[in-house]
Amino acid sequence: MTRFTFDAPTVIRTKRDGGVLSDAAIDWVIDGYTHGAVHDEQMSALLMAIFLKGMTPAEISRWTAAMIDSGDRFDFSDLRAHGKPLRLVDKHSTGGVGDKITIPLVPVVMACGAAVPQAAGRGLGHTGGTLDKLESIAGFSAELSKDQIRQQLQDIGAAIFAAGDLAPADRKIYALRDVTATTESLPLIASSIMSKKVAEGAQALVLDTKVGRGAFLKSEAEARELAATMVALGKDQGVDTRALLTDMDRPLGLAVGNAVEVAESLDVLAGGGPPDVVELTLALATQMLDAAGIDATDPAQTLRDGTAMDRFRDLVAAQGGDLSQPLPIGAHAEHVTASRGGTMGDIDAMAVGLAVWRLGAGRSTPGGQVQFGAGVRIHRRPGDPVAAGDPLFTLYTDTPARFEGALAELDGGWSIDDSAPADRPLIIDRIT
Amino acid sequence: MTRFTFDAPTVIRTKRDGGVLSDAAIDWVIDGYTHGAVHDEQMSALLMAIFLKGMTPAEISRWTAAMIDSGDRFDFSDLRAHGKPLRLVDKHSTGGVGDKITIPLVPVVMACGAAVPQAAGRGLGHTGGTLDKLESIAGFSAELSKDQIRQQLQDIGAAIFAAGDLAPADRKIYALRDVTATTESLPLIASSIMSKKVAEGAQALVLDTKVGRGAFLKSEAEARELAATMVALGKDQGVDTRALLTDMDRPLGLAVGNAVEVAESLDVLAGGGPPDVVELTLALATQMLDAAGIDATDPAQTLRDGTAMDRFRDLVAAQGGDLSQPLPIGAHAEHVTASRGGTMGDIDAMAVGLAVWRLGAGRSTPGGQVQFGAGVRIHRRPGDPVAAGDPLFTLYTDTPARFEGALAELDGGWSIDDSAPADRPLIIDRIT
Repeated sequence: MTRFTFDAPTVIRTKRDGGVLSDAAIDWVIDGYTHGAVHDEQMSALLMAIFLKGMTPAEISRWTAAMIDSGDRFDFSDLRAHGKPLRLVDKHSTGGVGDKITIPLVPVVMACGAAVPQAAGRGLGHTGGTLDKLESIAGFSAELSKDQIRQQLQDIGAAIFAAGDLAPADRKIYALRDVTATTESLPLIASSIMSKKVAEGAQALVLDTKVGRGAFLKSEAEARELAATMVALGKDQGVDTRALLTDMDRPLGLAVGNAVEVAESLDVLAGGGPPDVVELTLALATQMLDAAGIDATDPAQTLRDGTAMDRFRDLVAAQGGDLSQPLPIGAHAEHVTASRGGTMGDIDAMAVGLAVWRLGAGRSTPGGQVQFGAGVRIHRRPGDPVAAGDPLFTLYTDTPARFEGALAELDGGWSIDDSAPADRPLIIDRIT
Repeated sequence: MTRFTFDAPTVIRTKRDGGVLSDAAIDWVIDGYTHGAVHDEQMSALLMAIFLKGMTPAEISRWTAAMIDSGDRFDFSDLRAHGKPLRLVDKHSTGGVGDKITIPLVPVVMACGAAVPQAAGRGLGHTGGTLDKLESIAGFSAELSKDQIRQQLQDIGAAIFAAGDLAPADRKIYALRDVTATTESLPLIASSIMSKKVAEGAQALVLDTKVGRGAFLKSEAEARELAATMVALGKDQGVDTRALLTDMDRPLGLAVGNAVEVAESLDVLAGGGPPDVVELTLALATQMLDAAGIDATDPAQTLRDGTAMDRFRDLVAAQGGDLSQPLPIGAHAEHVTASRGGTMGDIDAMAVGLAVWRLGAGRSTPGGQVQFGAGVRIHRRPGDPVAAGDPLFTLYTDTPARFEGALAELDGGWSIDDSAPADRPLIIDRIT
């Protein structure tokens, strides 16, 4: 029995006027929204008030807990392998351009003995989604039931699945934020991410918090605050959580899109691939293994000896994927070549992200279709020597009418200079 | 052809971040919302952003113009009587407790030679609506077509009608504001009122801007700003507009409800009635006649000589009402009596307004039913002597279960003191 009764305008008014929502009010409004007693237009007004007035740490924590409680919270802590409990650990990225890190990372930590239950998302806007990338593998499915996830964790040690019924309140709120210009709010971002990540059943979590031109958050101070907020939310919920703060001024790696990122991930799993992708994969793997309490393992070894590639094949096969089929590639290609010689300058992650989105690799509305073969390959990384006429970028799409818009986005996002751009660290800090 | 294209999140984001909406953006979002391209949840987020970030005078003016343009704008300037053009003038009150002034006022100015096209509203919350009051007269209908309004203006010189198709954007936005805690916003209040008042076709307008405990606006500074904003909006649209700033700390008159307010209005039209109701009626009539360019008329004379009562009978008859039928009164009554002797202290308009609403005279949701016979009669006005056992208030309702809540609202809203409360002026200022 509820001891308090609320109505939506009163709750909205409290936040609108800069007040603090009580635990009971938060529980009521999240439950009411999940079940239809609080309407879309009321939640929108509340979200805008939260956007503009903020939330205290206690409010964010309760909001997150209420979103977790709106659905199932997975518990795989009873699973055992070789007589010992599984070490369930996951990572989450706040989203970047060319961020395919999950694809090589999950097999690396599997190969080192951790188990990964990963609720993953589809992309919206200029950052891609892990599921869009993996679904470019013929037959791959992320629609797993809870029983399938449990069985797959037991059998092979990982499952990458659509968040589905986890935190249904978050799913409704996320869709609303997208159309009401309330996405870029720290309390709403933090609670959205953490509600799904806590509900998925990992015991430890490493957050890759992106900062820079191609990230949600452009300022390091904001990104640090987001990371610290999410780490606290995870700990509140009993999940051992830590964060890396990493650079997203430049795209990660040399391939941005869906299938092209899978191809680059396969290069990494084969022991090659761009050094920044390898560096970030290993740094996150080290954090995950440490958080999972797995010592004395060199994750780089799993890339050299092929065990990570073996685990990736297991994972893809378990979810119906067929790596013997060729990865899709856009039917039409357009090249950007160097008009003069010099040194490749900086590359703006946002320009590349928007170009890839324009090519059809991303969505403009939730539920929209993506082109698996659309994307950009980058042929010169910042600081590389360039000769006049060298290919710098190749753009792929199935719909050549998209080239014009994509080229316009890319324009001004790179340069040929006379000297190399300043180096910057990929991994900026660790926040615990 | 539209030269600019917009999307709702971009418009919302601009206001969210404290920016100024362009004329084209305002036109687009109001038109889009009227026709469904902008959704409820998007308008809600925008309304909250407007609530918290405000609007410039230019934005409020354009927003109002766009709402007027969302529907029909009546033009009765071709109507003539006795060979001369009708002088079309109206008044609007921002809403108060016991504010039945329209009912005696319209006949007074009719009797003085002005014509009144009045779009009136139904009540929501603690302030009543003119239409709810008039509809307590058997047979009275406010559902008039434009042709009926025109004919009635020609025939008898007034029509009081439901706003209907006037400013349909405002109707949708008003309903949304009610459920999203975005009502008490100066730009939104001013544009909502003025869009309907400009569209109804009056050439001059007098605004009764209420301030005090029983009004929307509790502070005189806010009420002055609202009045000045509305006066400017009217003038922008070519309507000769002025405002009175009047007290709403205490209820107006001694009857609050629906039919009980009609009965009190009939007392005023018969030359009696509470002095505050008479004072405000005549003050507003003077302003309306002045604005309409009608000189040398003493509106008080029309109450003394019965010509205002005659015009009221004409108006009610033209709209189907039958004043020979008894006015409804709640089937159940409850009395509040004095526990001791002394002097009646101040009476809180909000306490009375909420009590009347609890008794069933008002609505809690748009479109809800009201009880015509519900209300409160006040038997002692502030400063009157009181003997122990004297009746102070009588509450009426058809549903006696409502007494408990109504008595609780009234409790604490009045007192018996040893000396009379300070007098305060009913009419605070005139704003032109």
